[in-house]
Amino acid sequence: MLNIETINQKQFSKISQQRTSRDSETYEEVDKDVQKIIASIRNKGDAAVFDYIERLDGVKLDELFVTDEEIDQAFKQVDDEMITILKEARSNIETYHKNQLEKSWYVNDQEGIWLGQQVTPIERVGVYVPGGKAAYPSTVLMNVVPAKVAGVESITVTTPVQPDGKVNPNTLVAVSIAGADRILKIGGAHGIATLAYGTESVDKVYKIVGPGNAYVARAKKFVFGDVAIDMIAGPSEVCIIADHQAEPRLIAADLLAQAEHDELASSILVTTSKQIATEVQQEVENQIKSLSRQDILAVSIAEQGRIYVVDQLNHAFEFVNELAPEHLEILVENPFEQLPKIKNAGAIFLGSYSPEPLGDYFAGPNHTLPTNGTAKFSSPLGVYDFQKKSSVIYYDQQSLEKANQKIQKFAQAERLDAHAASIRKRFE
Amino acid sequence: MLNIETINQKQFSKISQQRTSRDSETYEEVDKDVQKIIASIRNKGDAAVFDYIERLDGVKLDELFVTDEEIDQAFKQVDDEMITILKEARSNIETYHKNQLEKSWYVNDQEGIWLGQQVTPIERVGVYVPGGKAAYPSTVLMNVVPAKVAGVESITVTTPVQPDGKVNPNTLVAVSIAGADRILKIGGAHGIATLAYGTESVDKVYKIVGPGNAYVARAKKFVFGDVAIDMIAGPSEVCIIADHQAEPRLIAADLLAQAEHDELASSILVTTSKQIATEVQQEVENQIKSLSRQDILAVSIAEQGRIYVVDQLNHAFEFVNELAPEHLEILVENPFEQLPKIKNAGAIFLGSYSPEPLGDYFAGPNHTLPTNGTAKFSSPLGVYDFQKKSSVIYYDQQSLEKANQKIQKFAQAERLDAHAASIRKRFE
Repeated sequence: MLNIETINQKQFSKISQQRTSRDSETYEEVDKDVQKIIASIRNKGDAAVFDYIERLDGVKLDELFVTDEEIDQAFKQVDDEMITILKEARSNIETYHKNQLEKSWYVNDQEGIWLGQQVTPIERVGVYVPGGKAAYPSTVLMNVVPAKVAGVESITVTTPVQPDGKVNPNTLVAVSIAGADRILKIGGAHGIATLAYGTESVDKVYKIVGPGNAYVARAKKFVFGDVAIDMIAGPSEVCIIADHQAEPRLIAADLLAQAEHDELASSILVTTSKQIATEVQQEVENQIKSLSRQDILAVSIAEQGRIYVVDQLNHAFEFVNELAPEHLEILVENPFEQLPKIKNAGAIFLGSYSPEPLGDYFAGPNHTLPTNGTAKFSSPLGVYDFQKKSSVIYYDQQSLEKANQKIQKFAQAERLDAHAASIRKRFE
Repeated sequence: MLNIETINQKQFSKISQQRTSRDSETYEEVDKDVQKIIASIRNKGDAAVFDYIERLDGVKLDELFVTDEEIDQAFKQVDDEMITILKEARSNIETYHKNQLEKSWYVNDQEGIWLGQQVTPIERVGVYVPGGKAAYPSTVLMNVVPAKVAGVESITVTTPVQPDGKVNPNTLVAVSIAGADRILKIGGAHGIATLAYGTESVDKVYKIVGPGNAYVARAKKFVFGDVAIDMIAGPSEVCIIADHQAEPRLIAADLLAQAEHDELASSILVTTSKQIATEVQQEVENQIKSLSRQDILAVSIAEQGRIYVVDQLNHAFEFVNELAPEHLEILVENPFEQLPKIKNAGAIFLGSYSPEPLGDYFAGPNHTLPTNGTAKFSSPLGVYDFQKKSSVIYYDQQSLEKANQKIQKFAQAERLDAHAASIRKRFE
């Protein structure tokens, strides 16, 4: 049963804090294993990788890379309609992400001074793709395509190998359509360690993105600093803001779509209407019966789901900015007018015909989004995650001469006299 | 003595790896302390903060915030010329960084579909400012001004308190000129924990930036995920590419400016000219005698410094891209023409009148730059570090209807039937 709670402004911050501290797990045991795996792959390279694959994935491989033949075979196993849809989704994702491409720029505001910012792609990127039940082709597209758009030269996907020595054919097809350069059969923390430090047969990458289980997430945390990583994602969330005119049937369907991900997935409705609240509660009970993942749904709806009733629409936005949800649906009159009120959210879906699953697969914006309140400080995965900047400084003689005394004074104030000397010597 | 080494292309990657693994320190002891400090401040709030200040900074405070009176007093202690220079530097930094401001955008490529990206500032940011010898006013400006330009509503600076209960007046003046909203007298890991989790008297922030000692750096690593952090900076580095026409006297001065930071600071010359190499070596020996930080210089030049001689200019660029230096000076003919060859560098300084200290203090681009090879995947601190994005999706009824079957098929392929139902119900 989806609980209803009437709340006031004073409670917003506290409720948000409680919700974002869902993840109180400690990872001591996982961390020990992960650190051992990383150290062992750093020391022993390929030998350690093959060894972990045998021990943890239960298969003795003699080649870490997926072959072209295996990819061809995968295309035969996946149905043609699905391949067409994947290509259309890839194209939509590419079109949207091209808008994010940043350009180098320079300014020349003062004579003799040229300041700029040079934008370049990261040269080598690794993408982790989960195996098993979580082998989502959409995730492959969402992680690889932005890197391609950014102009990354070398994209290496790594994904768990199945006990038969093969990789999920849906994954292979999606990776191929997305345009990655090579695929490794290495899952878990050993996959992350291989990408981060390289081995005899695998070149190290400079950044690793992509979701994974606790081992993958903790391994990413440990290699952070030596390579860049994307945010570590928590359970998925949707928050729906609805006023009196929203349709309870659609709200319920969208809450359930989110809740089916896993038991910790969080589905929240914030509404100004008590009537909507009770109708949605009833609809959820009804609709759940016809869905296949009922065990998961029952748990996530009861334990993580909630309907919050607030007394005015502005308070709904204030509360949502505290929650900083991963997905936010705005099912109110004139949703566009409400956009400026939203400060913290991963992706914003406007109106009745923009349900969250549209964004998961198809519309084009990235579905890798900040969870667990991190939309307060981070962004969807994007092209900007695969580009980087260098600042560029040019002064001519006259311009430096004008600044000469000031820079020397500044350097002396910081007691760095070799800094001062470096400027001074230009004019001796 | 600055060593000279003639190297060839095959050695580039190995040398770069050796250089970027300078930091092989383990932090077990520091980590234990830091984790204890964080846990204690999360549990006990202000009481724990006051307690750590007494124990670690040796002063019993009864107020964590710097008062307006203390700031007024600081302005009287700092000389007026320095205040004017600080203001001019702030203005230059602001002007440059305004070019980095990102705007929200939307596209309307297909009828009935509206896709966009909403850009918003992070609401609350914390800036760590080191105390003691490393209390650099330039660091204050470089960290606070980009946050101001981004439109951050609330900027909290935290910095160690001196045993007399005061804060370094240079720091206070710089913070005030930079425009932060408040200053806390909390240094070390306890400063980071206070910003990350908040206490009764201090609001938690969403992102923490700024340099610090090992305790600060490790504390930032531990709170990462709960709040965002900037990159953890290593020792400072300069790399100079010089051809036969460069002036050894200026090259030597610039190498020494970098080397004076600390014993681990790294000063590298890559040149095509053996003559330049030996002349620079001699100049460094000569110039070092007239500088005040001779003890530091002797160590960093001998242990971290190096002159690499390569056989052609293109190889110099190839090598530098492997090194990915924090600062790169290009002292060759027509330096602008070489810009496209640079893939990995924090800041690029072009020609003889753009020495690195110009960028440290004055020109405007940020001096917080990726170190230790991380320019391969990260950028200077910038306005983009204080803005974040939300994607925006709007489909009208017709547009969703067109995509309806495809999205359902995709969702079914991922075995998420509540996702499919959420779309389907729009058309029942």
